[in-house]
Amino acid sequence: MINKGLGSAVHIVQMIIAEVLKRGGTAVDATAGNGHDTLFLARLVGSEGRVYAFDIQKKALESTKKLLERYGAAGQVTLLNTGHEEMDKLVPEPVDAVLFNLGYLPGGDHTLVTSAGTTVTALKSAVELLRPGGRIGMVLYTGHPGGNEELCAVEQYASGLKGAGFNVIKINYLNRTAHAPVIILVEKAGDLLESQAATQNS
Amino acid sequence: MINKGLGSAVHIVQMIIAEVLKRGGTAVDATAGNGHDTLFLARLVGSEGRVYAFDIQKKALESTKKLLERYGAAGQVTLLNTGHEEMDKLVPEPVDAVLFNLGYLPGGDHTLVTSAGTTVTALKSAVELLRPGGRIGMVLYTGHPGGNEELCAVEQYASGLKGAGFNVIKINYLNRTAHAPVIILVEKAGDLLESQAATQNS
Repeated sequence: MINKGLGSAVHIVQMIIAEVLKRGGTAVDATAGNGHDTLFLARLVGSEGRVYAFDIQKKALESTKKLLERYGAAGQVTLLNTGHEEMDKLVPEPVDAVLFNLGYLPGGDHTLVTSAGTTVTALKSAVELLRPGGRIGMVLYTGHPGGNEELCAVEQYASGLKGAGFNVIKINYLNRTAHAPVIILVEKAGDLLESQAATQNS
Repeated sequence: MINKGLGSAVHIVQMIIAEVLKRGGTAVDATAGNGHDTLFLARLVGSEGRVYAFDIQKKALESTKKLLERYGAAGQVTLLNTGHEEMDKLVPEPVDAVLFNLGYLPGGDHTLVTSAGTTVTALKSAVELLRPGGRIGMVLYTGHPGGNEELCAVEQYASGLKGAGFNVIKINYLNRTAHAPVIILVEKAGDLLESQAATQNS
């Protein structure tokens, strides 16, 4: 992994996710976009693992598919051309990690953005799907219309998760403009390694 | 490294520091305490590296020394029985990482706490000592008298570091009481690996 440093919110989230997502694991990319996070997850889980990648835009999934094929990682990824609020219906197994990189598709139509309602629906499903020790990482942007509302809704829901069962942290930049990205991380309490061992023994 | 999860602020800071502190590197433990962070840093740098560990309490350095000896890591650590505000005078080389775990010594005298003035002095020195790509990690507590003032002073200083030269992030818990620990991280822009390569070639 190239160290892009703490200046990249995506890098910070990837570092924290990488700690719990191992070879053979299962992950969701809730916002495939151009496929960079999908590829990141696919490489961590390897050919024995599984990544479910959602995007409402066909163009995004086409870019993702191309990127995965270029790196020989398409086999372990299920591409789903639908909104991530369908996650509870379409992901058939518990997961170790879920990534959200919200806002609009880079290089795509800037009027098509994720929104507070569907994002929170998807986040609730992600929390349900998460294995003990698993983590959800979200990068949120407030520079576009609706971005602030989305951050507030996510923060309100995540803050309400019970302290004994979940660790919920917020990461923000102190020396940047008000529109710097914000990170929210949710961890379901428990030890991932123990839970993986239990799965392997069952 | 055992995964203690995002419920431990110390674990989060250690994970972020471990990304940039490699074998042969140099680090400072600004608050040796019972030596757990010192041991963590000493193991990362190995016998070719160097850790400078500060504590104003003799008792803390004695505990630290015992812990390091038990794990065969005392050789690479310089113990300094003085306040971390002396860092600029006593650390003779650029460093890759600096850790602060503020407040009082666990199991020690709770009236002896770090304070805003000396902590900010030490932080300024740490910023000066830091190599490009290096990181400073601070865990702050607000449950004791003076804790809030210390956090405010650190946050004010760190927020003023210029965005082009530094990445400054704050991490806080969303679903805990007001007295949950807070993390501040400062990264000097640049690539640590490049800077290490340059040092090795010189």
